[in-house]
Amino acid sequence: MSEPSGLAEETRRLLELTSTATLTTQLFKRGLRNTFVQGVRRVTPGHGVMVGEAFTLRMIPAREDLDHPDMFTDRSHPQRRAIEECPPGAVLAIDCRKETRAGCLGDILCARLLERGVAGVVTDGAVRDLPQIEALPLPVYAAGGAAPASFGVHHAVDLNQPIACGDVAEFPGDVLVGDREGVVVIPRHLADEVARDAAEQEQLESWILNEVKAGKGIFGLYPPDAETRARYQAWRDGRRER
Amino acid sequence: MSEPSGLAEETRRLLELTSTATLTTQLFKRGLRNTFVQGVRRVTPGHGVMVGEAFTLRMIPAREDLDHPDMFTDRSHPQRRAIEECPPGAVLAIDCRKETRAGCLGDILCARLLERGVAGVVTDGAVRDLPQIEALPLPVYAAGGAAPASFGVHHAVDLNQPIACGDVAEFPGDVLVGDREGVVVIPRHLADEVARDAAEQEQLESWILNEVKAGKGIFGLYPPDAETRARYQAWRDGRRER
Amino acid sequence: MSEPSGLAEETRRLLELTSTATLTTQLFKRGLRNTFVQGVRRVTPGHGVMVGEAFTLRMIPAREDLDHPDMFTDRSHPQRRAIEECPPGAVLAIDCRKETRAGCLGDILCARLLERGVAGVVTDGAVRDLPQIEALPLPVYAAGGAAPASFGVHHAVDLNQPIACGDVAEFPGDVLVGDREGVVVIPRHLADEVARDAAEQEQLESWILNEVKAGKGIFGLYPPDAETRARYQAWRDGRRER
Amino acid sequence: MSEPSGLAEETRRLLELTSTATLTTQLFKRGLRNTFVQGVRRVTPGHGVMVGEAFTLRMIPAREDLDHPDMFTDRSHPQRRAIEECPPGAVLAIDCRKETRAGCLGDILCARLLERGVAGVVTDGAVRDLPQIEALPLPVYAAGGAAPASFGVHHAVDLNQPIACGDVAEFPGDVLVGDREGVVVIPRHLADEVARDAAEQEQLESWILNEVKAGKGIFGLYPPDAETRARYQAWRDGRRER
Amino acid sequence: MSEPSGLAEETRRLLELTSTATLTTQLFKRGLRNTFVQGVRRVTPGHGVMVGEAFTLRMIPAREDLDHPDMFTDRSHPQRRAIEECPPGAVLAIDCRKETRAGCLGDILCARLLERGVAGVVTDGAVRDLPQIEALPLPVYAAGGAAPASFGVHHAVDLNQPIACGDVAEFPGDVLVGDREGVVVIPRHLADEVARDAAEQEQLESWILNEVKAGKGIFGLYPPDAETRARYQAWRDGRRER
Amino acid sequence: MSEPSGLAEETRRLLELTSTATLTTQLFKRGLRNTFVQGVRRVTPGHGVMVGEAFTLRMIPAREDLDHPDMFTDRSHPQRRAIEECPPGAVLAIDCRKETRAGCLGDILCARLLERGVAGVVTDGAVRDLPQIEALPLPVYAAGGAAPASFGVHHAVDLNQPIACGDVAEFPGDVLVGDREGVVVIPRHLADEVARDAAEQEQLESWILNEVKAGKGIFGLYPPDAETRARYQAWRDGRRER
Repeated sequence: MSEPSGLAEETRRLLELTSTATLTTQLFKRGLRNTFVQGVRRVTPGHGVMVGEAFTLRMIPAREDLDHPDMFTDRSHPQRRAIEECPPGAVLAIDCRKETRAGCLGDILCARLLERGVAGVVTDGAVRDLPQIEALPLPVYAAGGAAPASFGVHHAVDLNQPIACGDVAEFPGDVLVGDREGVVVIPRHLADEVARDAAEQEQLESWILNEVKAGKGIFGLYPPDAETRARYQAWRDGRRER
Repeated sequence: MSEPSGLAEETRRLLELTSTATLTTQLFKRGLRNTFVQGVRRVTPGHGVMVGEAFTLRMIPAREDLDHPDMFTDRSHPQRRAIEECPPGAVLAIDCRKETRAGCLGDILCARLLERGVAGVVTDGAVRDLPQIEALPLPVYAAGGAAPASFGVHHAVDLNQPIACGDVAEFPGDVLVGDREGVVVIPRHLADEVARDAAEQEQLESWILNEVKAGKGIFGLYPPDAETRARYQAWRDGRRER
Repeated sequence: MSEPSGLAEETRRLLELTSTATLTTQLFKRGLRNTFVQGVRRVTPGHGVMVGEAFTLRMIPAREDLDHPDMFTDRSHPQRRAIEECPPGAVLAIDCRKETRAGCLGDILCARLLERGVAGVVTDGAVRDLPQIEALPLPVYAAGGAAPASFGVHHAVDLNQPIACGDVAEFPGDVLVGDREGVVVIPRHLADEVARDAAEQEQLESWILNEVKAGKGIFGLYPPDAETRARYQAWRDGRRER
Repeated sequence: MSEPSGLAEETRRLLELTSTATLTTQLFKRGLRNTFVQGVRRVTPGHGVMVGEAFTLRMIPAREDLDHPDMFTDRSHPQRRAIEECPPGAVLAIDCRKETRAGCLGDILCARLLERGVAGVVTDGAVRDLPQIEALPLPVYAAGGAAPASFGVHHAVDLNQPIACGDVAEFPGDVLVGDREGVVVIPRHLADEVARDAAEQEQLESWILNEVKAGKGIFGLYPPDAETRARYQAWRDGRRER
Repeated sequence: MSEPSGLAEETRRLLELTSTATLTTQLFKRGLRNTFVQGVRRVTPGHGVMVGEAFTLRMIPAREDLDHPDMFTDRSHPQRRAIEECPPGAVLAIDCRKETRAGCLGDILCARLLERGVAGVVTDGAVRDLPQIEALPLPVYAAGGAAPASFGVHHAVDLNQPIACGDVAEFPGDVLVGDREGVVVIPRHLADEVARDAAEQEQLESWILNEVKAGKGIFGLYPPDAETRARYQAWRDGRRER
Repeated sequence: MSEPSGLAEETRRLLELTSTATLTTQLFKRGLRNTFVQGVRRVTPGHGVMVGEAFTLRMIPAREDLDHPDMFTDRSHPQRRAIEECPPGAVLAIDCRKETRAGCLGDILCARLLERGVAGVVTDGAVRDLPQIEALPLPVYAAGGAAPASFGVHHAVDLNQPIACGDVAEFPGDVLVGDREGVVVIPRHLADEVARDAAEQEQLESWILNEVKAGKGIFGLYPPDAETRARYQAWRDGRRER
């Protein structure tokens, strides 16, 4: 089982400044086309960007003789262990097979994750106690809200194995970044370079957006041709001088 | 045709204090696994919890020779009768076969339901005039909003028969409870005991949530072991003494 | 290629006052049952009603050798041309085959459309940079938000051809009207008469809604019988006299 | 409850000679656009065309306390009553809400329907014991095969009420015609005239098909222009003379 | 990792004689409601019933840098290991997340499984080389056929872990039984008793079917009342005497 | 409008010998991952492989005032023109937006295509008169069969424009190859080299399959390592000498 090994502070800082849109473009340029978690939305509106390494929990369909409320007294139950073992600063990523008829987590468990300093939650299933969770300062991404508890639909199998989440592969330690658009999965070994290049791209596109707001047309500007690149470079140089 | 027979005041009061999440757990403990209406959301954000007995309306697909604007002049039309006959305090539950291409109700009919003291509306189809309905102090749950009128898609068949709504069975008189998460269906004969036990569970979980916020881990706490139960009992006893 | 030919000022004014619900009813009366764009929502909450003639862009699935970031340097690329050629006052309508895994437009292109005076955007696909787009005073309707850029999923083919959008036919020049409920497609030749009759219907239904709020029942009122129509006419005549 | 009232022998004979394709065209000409049961297939390959009046059975979702194997000992159970009460020559039409996780009928019940002279079965759900049913000389249309028994998924509610089946309205007594393409629903009052005109259309199209096979192009032939109609009439007259 | 431990010969023999329909009923009586693999069909028509213990292979979505044709040269690749390690008499069960855009196995690998004496294949994804596979005397169940190879869509992760397959939980060693209707999953510890009781039920229902064919009605017969049970018992006793 | 320009006889011959599975692998090696038409099946079982250049027809949703039986008398109607203009040896490819509620072609039009020497039909919609079409010696691929005529659901727009078909891009002139598994789209400029390399791959895999049938394991064999390649080469050389 691979242990999340710590994200460089600079990488984390840069990722907090970039949009998931920009990150998917950087990953596309590296040949990765399927990096955006499908079908989930941010269910806790405020509280900023989510950045953290994936700590995974895998669910399969429930079986009535195995899955019932009493099983949670078992301290080795993977769902409960996930709540206490997901490292501070990591993101709990849960494979629910896109099944939304039950919530895989509720407000008490989310409150505990928040207490423990976990960076966020991403699941392609549902959460329960949605009205209570919405108020927590914890980034939570889910495919919806559903009142029924997990054991009627899900059987928790294992921790920190590679999973599918919203039709994207997530390996333990992959860097998950979430803004209000959604969640992008960055393979662990690419995190530093993608963060750096994405921040660069953000700066250029922010300048381009200002040009557009100043009335410029997009041809030659977006994407920038040589002349535009020169103007941008001059602007950047000018800023640095200040 | 079963007539809704009045919900005990205490039961109604307790149900207004409990979340749909807690109610599904109480129903699960009684062997009922499929009680949460799938695929609907609260479309009128404010105005509190919905509690009421189901008064049902059933739709089948429209047939062009039967379904057109003129049919509404017929006072025996089931959709129009539903608006005037749904008892005050009851919930109008509409089976639209999860079809959302047309609205089964619009703002005028919702305003009339509100005038008549109806407790809310639940449909697995769409409503129309969504922007206007959003402003009404009436709990409305639907699978979405759609501008087209019902007669292009739906044919109203009958009132107060058992229906499917969001993949859940709803019998006339069943108690429907809705919060911002969604709607749970409580079989009529279970309403009193479920309300009582759910209120009990809410109180325990509220105490547990406070423990979590105070930094406690979930093992032994949630679900509570004997020691935790004893601490909870002591806390309750202490409160009562005050 | 048909050129949008200018919407009469009175027609535009009336359409801005009518709901999409009312417009679908007027179209239904003329035999058109499939006029409401399915599966899209207003992603930019504020900024009023959208009215404009359709300028269309058509996408087919991407092919890796044709679709990559570099292609946007080509000034004949249909997606980029759409941004600069969609007439002021028109609506850019994009056929994405209901595919939401990538955004067909992002914030820079939307900002440019806004600068150019375009009336809005409707797509049955996704947009990207949703958090940034939400802040723009431009009506945008989409099936969702997705971070990945268009070229991974879509190949832009042509401009101003008839398209499918949300399971509705859209011909260049058709009048698209959008409120918070969604978007209705009015065939170009019907725009004037539909606008006029819809405004008439709105006025009647507004009066009916007031009657309902005053406690009237719906039988004989909605739809109005002869007596109700007489009362309404009297009220109208009275208003005009003032 | 309307009682199926007997289909004229000539109507039945003509319907057995026409394809469902031709019947949908005749219904379309009468303004009925939604008459073909969606999502079902003929699961019993041989044994000819199915023609009969609809006898309906309606299912809603199962509830665990009501639906279990023991309930079938109750002789008033609607599913069991349907088997013994569906009239000979009628078609048993079952509304399963397009839910295919369980079979609504198995081989024993189908064998009994066959014994009783029932004309066929149509359901938008699944049947069970599919391998055994395939061998029966009984037209059966279903959305698939599923081993689990009905009571885990369906609760039988009532008989001979209007139902939805494959997104089409089916009223008791409507005439259901099935060939290897699928099932068309003919409103009872139109059966005679549709049967007559469809047979007429079949004869014309059969002649057109022969023309095509003889090398004729479709312009002027299909649909036939005046000259083609004259040639067809001459051919018909010639045949009659023989 | 649990090792499949050998199925009793008598249990295997009985399971080969029972239908999946009967097996789901026996499992339902033991409280297991979700045991039938959804969405798959037998793609190799002939060659009898499939019985064997599950040997599982799990797929997650592909990642372009990890999944390409060259990876198959790696002898530790889980998909290739599955082909050589699945025990004779076991069933290879593959979790493809119901994704059918690529085949998870083709004709060469199926031919190898056949050579090695594997009892069958079950996947909720697709197979490729379907026309060739159809001719193999190997029971194969899949959600469809798709020409593209697995590596464009799937990343093979691990062997003999619990999986989801067609919305059912499959644990290594569970007994998978497949007939032409589909596949049922029997938890390992229930296999012997379920096999025995199912065989018993088959015999009773076979007798009931004969009664129906002889013209008996279903009331009192199916399910059998006391008198019918007595008649059945007499018939059984009579047979044994012979 | 690009005119299909004739497929080299050798390319056609080789493509008739290769499976769609092999072709998708050759395209994948050239970076094309999305080449297999999703969701269609061969509805005319016999009559061999389909090879031909795409002649495309595009449908959008029907509009009641434009689409009705009478419009087919218009000789410029794109659907009718497609039947008479699709070149002999080409494949008629129809974009139906995966909509299967109506057939886009029936038996008379298919018979005419057969007469004219067209190589086949591919649509992501449905065909009608399926039972009659099944008997024609014409390869037809569709998502299903549906009795209703096209005009109730589809509006034919244009010919020989790029289309989407089963979630794959199809450009006029692309080479469509169909076997019993389905249909693969080969970009026109790659047809010759893909045909050649695919034939090569088929020969190797056919030899590998024989090795497997002779009891060889797959490691080192499939994919072949250096030693296996040498053995294969020796076998090929030996064959040539004969």
